[in-house]
Amino acid sequence: MKTILNPSTETWDLLTQRPSFAYKDINPVIDQVFDAVKEEGDIALKRYTQQFDSCELDAFRVSERELKDSVEEISLALKSAIDFAYHNIKVFHEAQRTADVEVETTKGVRCWQAKKPIQKVGLYIPGGTAPLFSTILMLAIPAQLAGCSEIVLCTPPQSDGTIAAAIRYAAQLCGVSQLFKIGGIQAIAALTYGTESVPKVFKIFGPGNQYVTAAKQKATTCGVAIDMPAGPSELLVIADQSAVPSYVAADLLSQAEHGKDSQVVLVSTSLEVIDNIKHELQLQLLQLHRRDMAQIALEHAMALFFDDESTAVDFINAYSPEHYIICMKNEDFFVEAVQNAGSVFIGNYTPESVGDYASGTNHTLPTNGFAKQYSGVNLDSFMKAITFQKLSKTGILKIGKAVEEMADAEGLDAHKNAVRMRLKDLI
Amino acid sequence: MKTILNPSTETWDLLTQRPSFAYKDINPVIDQVFDAVKEEGDIALKRYTQQFDSCELDAFRVSERELKDSVEEISLALKSAIDFAYHNIKVFHEAQRTADVEVETTKGVRCWQAKKPIQKVGLYIPGGTAPLFSTILMLAIPAQLAGCSEIVLCTPPQSDGTIAAAIRYAAQLCGVSQLFKIGGIQAIAALTYGTESVPKVFKIFGPGNQYVTAAKQKATTCGVAIDMPAGPSELLVIADQSAVPSYVAADLLSQAEHGKDSQVVLVSTSLEVIDNIKHELQLQLLQLHRRDMAQIALEHAMALFFDDESTAVDFINAYSPEHYIICMKNEDFFVEAVQNAGSVFIGNYTPESVGDYASGTNHTLPTNGFAKQYSGVNLDSFMKAITFQKLSKTGILKIGKAVEEMADAEGLDAHKNAVRMRLKDLI
Repeated sequence: MKTILNPSTETWDLLTQRPSFAYKDINPVIDQVFDAVKEEGDIALKRYTQQFDSCELDAFRVSERELKDSVEEISLALKSAIDFAYHNIKVFHEAQRTADVEVETTKGVRCWQAKKPIQKVGLYIPGGTAPLFSTILMLAIPAQLAGCSEIVLCTPPQSDGTIAAAIRYAAQLCGVSQLFKIGGIQAIAALTYGTESVPKVFKIFGPGNQYVTAAKQKATTCGVAIDMPAGPSELLVIADQSAVPSYVAADLLSQAEHGKDSQVVLVSTSLEVIDNIKHELQLQLLQLHRRDMAQIALEHAMALFFDDESTAVDFINAYSPEHYIICMKNEDFFVEAVQNAGSVFIGNYTPESVGDYASGTNHTLPTNGFAKQYSGVNLDSFMKAITFQKLSKTGILKIGKAVEEMADAEGLDAHKNAVRMRLKDLI
Repeated sequence: MKTILNPSTETWDLLTQRPSFAYKDINPVIDQVFDAVKEEGDIALKRYTQQFDSCELDAFRVSERELKDSVEEISLALKSAIDFAYHNIKVFHEAQRTADVEVETTKGVRCWQAKKPIQKVGLYIPGGTAPLFSTILMLAIPAQLAGCSEIVLCTPPQSDGTIAAAIRYAAQLCGVSQLFKIGGIQAIAALTYGTESVPKVFKIFGPGNQYVTAAKQKATTCGVAIDMPAGPSELLVIADQSAVPSYVAADLLSQAEHGKDSQVVLVSTSLEVIDNIKHELQLQLLQLHRRDMAQIALEHAMALFFDDESTAVDFINAYSPEHYIICMKNEDFFVEAVQNAGSVFIGNYTPESVGDYASGTNHTLPTNGFAKQYSGVNLDSFMKAITFQKLSKTGILKIGKAVEEMADAEGLDAHKNAVRMRLKDLI
C-alpha cells in the first residue's frame, strides 16, 4: 500500500480512476452465446453448461424436493444466521415502502403517483469456490416485498450438477419462484430471450465476472433493464486517532480478499494513524487463507494523507466509494458531507462485513465511481412509479388555456385541438 | 386504422410489438463523433455544428443577456402559460420527496437511507420545426428540486445561430446552470466526455431521434447513466359508451401528429364505439396542419375489440403503453388493474395534452413496452439513495455471530475476522 501526501486536485482524476476492462475483446463471445440461446433455447443452454461448468444436465430447474431438502442439509447455526439476516434485511427494505403521492396541483386537477412491482425479475448469483447465498437475500427479499410475481434465479451448477444447500435454502426462504442451474453468459441470455425452460424477464439483477457484466450490458440492448453496471468491489476508510488500527486493518483486508482487483483506499489526516494501520495490515495478512489474493490487492491500494478534513471529504466524494467506513471523532461532520457513496459504515463497531450480511442494508452497490449517479439495490429497484391524473370540468377549464397556448407555441395543432374540443362544450 | 376482433393471446406478442430500428447501421457514425469530441473537444463540436445544423458558432454557451432578454421576446400569454405549468409540475414533483428512512433492525443496529442529488446532470432538448420548451420544464424542474448543482442543457441552434426565446425563457425559469447551442450526437458526446466549454455530467436525460437515442446508449458504456431508452411516442385509449367519440378521436390524433411512427391504439368492448370514433377520426384529420404525418401514423394504428373487459385489461398490461387514457364507466376497475403504463389519463376531461404540458405529471415516459420495468422521469430520477449504518457495542454483540457464520460459509475469512476482532475485545 503506497502512501500519497496531499495529492493536488490535478492528480485526483488519476487517483479516482478504476481499472478498466476491454469489453471489445469479449463482445463477440457474448454475441455468439446470445444468438445461440435465442435460436436454440435449451439445447444451447445444455451445450454451454457442459462447456463452461463441466456438467451435463437433463433439466435445469431445481425441484421442489431439492429446495425443501435444503433445510435438513445446512447446519442449524447457518440456518439461524440466514434467518436472522433475513429478518433485518426485510425490516430495512420494508421501511423503504412509500405511500402513493397525491396532489391537486390546480383546482380540479388531481395527479397521483403509485408504485407497482416489476412483474418478472431475474436474479443472477455467481458460482465460485463458495456459495454466495447472501446475495440471494439481498436481491430476493426486496423482490418479494415489492410483490414481483415471478422471481427467477439462475446460478451455475457445481460440477456434480447440484446447487449448494445454502443457495437452495436462501432461495426458498425468500420466495424465489424458479431456481435454475444455469450460469454465465448463457444464464443472462436465457433470462433475456426466454427458452423452453427459462421465462423471459423484464429486469436482471446481480453480480458477476466480466463476462456476466458484459452480458448484462448486452441485455440492455434487447429490451431488458439491469440493476446497474458492475466493477470490482471497493472500500474507502477514513480514520483518525479515535479508530482502532487493528479494526481498520481487518476491514481493509476484508475488502482485499474479494479479488486481485479489489479497490482498497485509506484516508487520514494523520500520518501516524496511517503507519499504525499499515503495520497492522502486515500482521493480519499473514493469517488469512486468501492472503495471496489480498496481498495483490494491497499492492495497488492507496493510503492518502490530507492536511485538512474538508479536502479529504472533497476527495472522497470525487472517488465515490462503493463502501465507505467513517471512523472519526467528529463523525457527524463526515456523515453530513457524504454526497457520493454506496453504503456508509460509521464508528469502530460497524465493519463492512455487517452490511455484507446482516445489518439490513443491501450489499448490491454501485462500484466504479457509479455511486455518483446510481443507488444501491433497494425496494424501488423492483418497482416502477406510474403517474395518474384526472381532471374535472373545473380542472380542464382552469388548465385548458395554458395547454392550448403551449401546444400552439410548439406547433402541435392536434394537441391544442384535444383541449379545445372539451372547452368548446363547457364554455 | 384496422379493427381486430378478439385477438387470441398467441397473437399478442405480434400486436404488442413496436417498430424496431437497426442501430448497427448508425453505430459507426456514433463512434466516430464520440471519438472526435473526446479527442478534439470544442473544435469537433464546431465542425459538427456546421455540418449538421448549418450554422457557424464562435461560442456555444448562451449568454446571461440572451437568457434575460427571453422574457421580453415571448408573448405575455405564453409566459403566463409556462409559469402556470411550472407551478403545477413543481407542486407534483415536490410532493414526491421522501423523508429519510431510519430503522433499528436489531437492538443497537441502526440503519438509514438518505437521498442525495446527482450533482451534475445533462438535459437534451431536440430541435425541429418548433421549440420543445415543455420538455425543459419536465426535466429541469425535478433537477432543480432535487438540488442538482450543475444542470447543463444542450439543444441545437437554429440556422441563424440563436436559440428560440421560449427555450431560453424556460431554461432560466427552471434554474438551468448552463445552456449550450449544441445538438445531436455531438451534444451527447460533449456531455459524456466534457470539452473546453461543456462540463462532463453523470447522467443524461431527454428525448431525441434515433441518433440521439443511440448516442445515449453509447454514453452508458462510457460511465454515464441515462434516463431510459427511447422509442416513438405511444397512446392507448380504452373507451366505452361513456366516452365522447370526438374527444377520443382528438386524443388519438394528438398522438398521431407526433410522427409517422407514432403508436396509436384504441381498445373497446363495443364495436359501435369503435365505429363512432373511427368516423370522428376521419372528420377531424382533414382539419389538421400535420394531417399527412398523422394519416401515416393512423394507417398502422389498431382498434382492438375484446368481448370482455378482463381480457382487455390483460392485453393493455401486456402492451404497456406510454400514455394510457381510460374513458370507461367503471373506471375504478381499470385504474386498479393498471400494472404497466407510463402515465394514465382518466375520464372525458383528461386529454393526454394536459399531461404533456401542464397538469403536473411528467411527460418523459417509457415507450417501447419499457413501462414494464422503467418509471417515467420523476424526482428520484435526479437523486440516488445512499444507505448508512451504525452499530453500538450491543449491536455488534447481537449481530456478530450471524455475520461470522455466514462469512465462514461463503469462505470469506477476512470478513469473519473483521467481526471477530471486535467481539474478542467486547466479550
